[in-house]
Amino acid sequence: MLTLTQIGQNAKKAECRVRNLTAGEKNRLLTFAAKRLTEQASHIIEANEKDIANARANQMHEGLVDRLLLNPERIEAMAQGLCQIASLDDPIGAVSQMKPRPNGLLIGQKRVPLGVIGIIYEARPNVTADAFGLCFKTGNAVILKGGSDAIHSNQAIVEVIRGALAECGLVEDAIQLIEDTSRETATQFMKLRQYVDVLIPRGGAGLIRAVVENSTIPVIETGTGNCHIYVDESADLDMAADIVTNAKTQRIGVCNACESLLVHESVAQEFLPKLQQTIQKSGRAVEIRGDEAVCHVLSSAVKATEEDWGTEYLDYILSAKTVKSVDEAIAHINRYNTKHSEAIITNNYGNAQQFLNEVDAAAVYVNASTRFTDGFEFGFGAEIGISTQKLHARGPMGLEALTTTKYIIYGNGQVRP
Amino acid sequence: MLTLTQIGQNAKKAECRVRNLTAGEKNRLLTFAAKRLTEQASHIIEANEKDIANARANQMHEGLVDRLLLNPERIEAMAQGLCQIASLDDPIGAVSQMKPRPNGLLIGQKRVPLGVIGIIYEARPNVTADAFGLCFKTGNAVILKGGSDAIHSNQAIVEVIRGALAECGLVEDAIQLIEDTSRETATQFMKLRQYVDVLIPRGGAGLIRAVVENSTIPVIETGTGNCHIYVDESADLDMAADIVTNAKTQRIGVCNACESLLVHESVAQEFLPKLQQTIQKSGRAVEIRGDEAVCHVLSSAVKATEEDWGTEYLDYILSAKTVKSVDEAIAHINRYNTKHSEAIITNNYGNAQQFLNEVDAAAVYVNASTRFTDGFEFGFGAEIGISTQKLHARGPMGLEALTTTKYIIYGNGQVRP
Repeated sequence: MLTLTQIGQNAKKAECRVRNLTAGEKNRLLTFAAKRLTEQASHIIEANEKDIANARANQMHEGLVDRLLLNPERIEAMAQGLCQIASLDDPIGAVSQMKPRPNGLLIGQKRVPLGVIGIIYEARPNVTADAFGLCFKTGNAVILKGGSDAIHSNQAIVEVIRGALAECGLVEDAIQLIEDTSRETATQFMKLRQYVDVLIPRGGAGLIRAVVENSTIPVIETGTGNCHIYVDESADLDMAADIVTNAKTQRIGVCNACESLLVHESVAQEFLPKLQQTIQKSGRAVEIRGDEAVCHVLSSAVKATEEDWGTEYLDYILSAKTVKSVDEAIAHINRYNTKHSEAIITNNYGNAQQFLNEVDAAAVYVNASTRFTDGFEFGFGAEIGISTQKLHARGPMGLEALTTTKYIIYGNGQVRP
Repeated sequence: MLTLTQIGQNAKKAECRVRNLTAGEKNRLLTFAAKRLTEQASHIIEANEKDIANARANQMHEGLVDRLLLNPERIEAMAQGLCQIASLDDPIGAVSQMKPRPNGLLIGQKRVPLGVIGIIYEARPNVTADAFGLCFKTGNAVILKGGSDAIHSNQAIVEVIRGALAECGLVEDAIQLIEDTSRETATQFMKLRQYVDVLIPRGGAGLIRAVVENSTIPVIETGTGNCHIYVDESADLDMAADIVTNAKTQRIGVCNACESLLVHESVAQEFLPKLQQTIQKSGRAVEIRGDEAVCHVLSSAVKATEEDWGTEYLDYILSAKTVKSVDEAIAHINRYNTKHSEAIITNNYGNAQQFLNEVDAAAVYVNASTRFTDGFEFGFGAEIGISTQKLHARGPMGLEALTTTKYIIYGNGQVRP
């Protein structure tokens, strides 16, 4: 097994070769790797069966086993993902804002790869192909550190992709997998600053926290979502009920699902029963944890604790609070949110603008479901994650988030006076 | 004295108020604070005299004492700096790329402040006013941690600015100074993630390293510069001698000065004596530490060690190496550089393009001095530092580097199918 240092050195060498590939060369490889994934599906499924057997032996929750499972359809989807990435425009190499300075220097900004990207992720093996596709398309080398649960699946997928790279005469180390899945190795990886330019964790709150606390490599945090919807006094209450129901129940285990409802006290009496009916009509049951006023209106609601306001349930549970004004709603959101996605339902122009201006989050909505915060829904064609930090990239990250720029300057002998 | 937590909480409160100031309100404050700095110069100079007396008592090197010194002219320059920042365009609030999606959602990206910015810096007290001006103009609250050498000067400057904020009816905590200058407090500050959105160190390599290793707050690294100039076979050697002399001697203590010369072996014999003459004519003496071939041509050169290739001298010293090709020059640069500024002097089109493409640095030049890597020279009107990292901002950072974006989305009832 290679040491982390060897893996880092290999990645740095690969970086220099991947960086200067043309879009045509990169797209051909992505399409070819997709073909090989489909052709070698049975090999990948065989490896995946080992992971599934281990998972069952370790009594893994069936929902998680399902996330781990690969079948021909899922491998086909992985391959299709690579083809889709191939079809996107290549951002690398474009030069913007090229302008002459008074002394004749011509200065522009050229879009270039980040270099070596590290990705630490948890169970789902499809991330392996996906992350490679996005990093390779943007001219980066990638070092992957998956979870122990998916190690055989990840190894098989990486083997197929490395094979495709070799067959195309490209550098296999454009993708490397850290095969030692121990926590100690993960922590060392987070300090591999000499070789890794950026680290992207993809997983639950515990993983993100460990990376933020231990990494000396710059991190792009893809975070959790404690998303709120505020139903204003002037809201169309039918629209509000539809949007809250959608944002809460359309898919529960995702970071852009609604976790907390704020409702103006003057419409709580009318809105809350309406919401309950809409949820019932959708065929779902949602537990509501409310403040005193909410519990007073909805007899089925249970009393919320302080902890509820800060909780991302990822479940059929919704915290609910009445507020006296849009100011109170904004203050509550800015105190408890995770800077992900927040929505106001209103017909009041001033309140809509104030909410857009003052709520601190990656995506702020007027009269729409928070569930739209997503690279595909935003039209980026691909997504490496949703950044909840403020540096570099905020919100859904498409290809450009995996790039940086450098200044290029054309002179004819200029010296500084 | 306030605790770090109190300072953090104050900054978060101030952030909400500074964020929504109009450009007019911010510019009026900056101009007014400039006026107060000039008016209260004698108060600041009095405080500065204490720092100077302490520095002399501690046998501080005279060059550093000079950097610490404030006099009426330097305070006037500080005030002028604030007025200049007031005259720049405010980037905050602009919405770009607003586009409808097929479902009718209208999605745009709005430029917003980062929030609370932490700045850790060393001796020069002018950074205090400068950093405040840039952060305030971009709607951020700032927490400053200066060095113990400048504590009295920094306190006096911050006091004047806070007074100006109060007089304008604005929140004084838009600027706060950590008065405890101990290293322990600095380390704790680097972990104040709950309250500080971004940390920017400004100082030497030791400070940068400490921040990178200890900070849990996202960092923008403003780094050191081991900058190279490569004189190609086809270079105009007179131009090359002028550029190297300028980049090495025009100012030595700065990160964009040239520290290392690479010269194609076929022109070394002609170029090196010419360079020596040009340096002599400039009235400076530069020690050259060369490889064997360089020492063979220049009898005055001393033998370079491996360590020299990686050293930022910040002095009248230049390392010099002969290379066989542009490939060897690029490989050497990518191995030893600090990703700051690199230049090629050439008349060969292919070599110029290859150098621009393959050298990994924030700024890459053809036929010009590396000394131009600077926010003012690039036309940004202001500079918070020069980023040598790849995330968020790379190269000279103007106002936009102190901002982020958020997605704003206008809907009319959209839910996710």
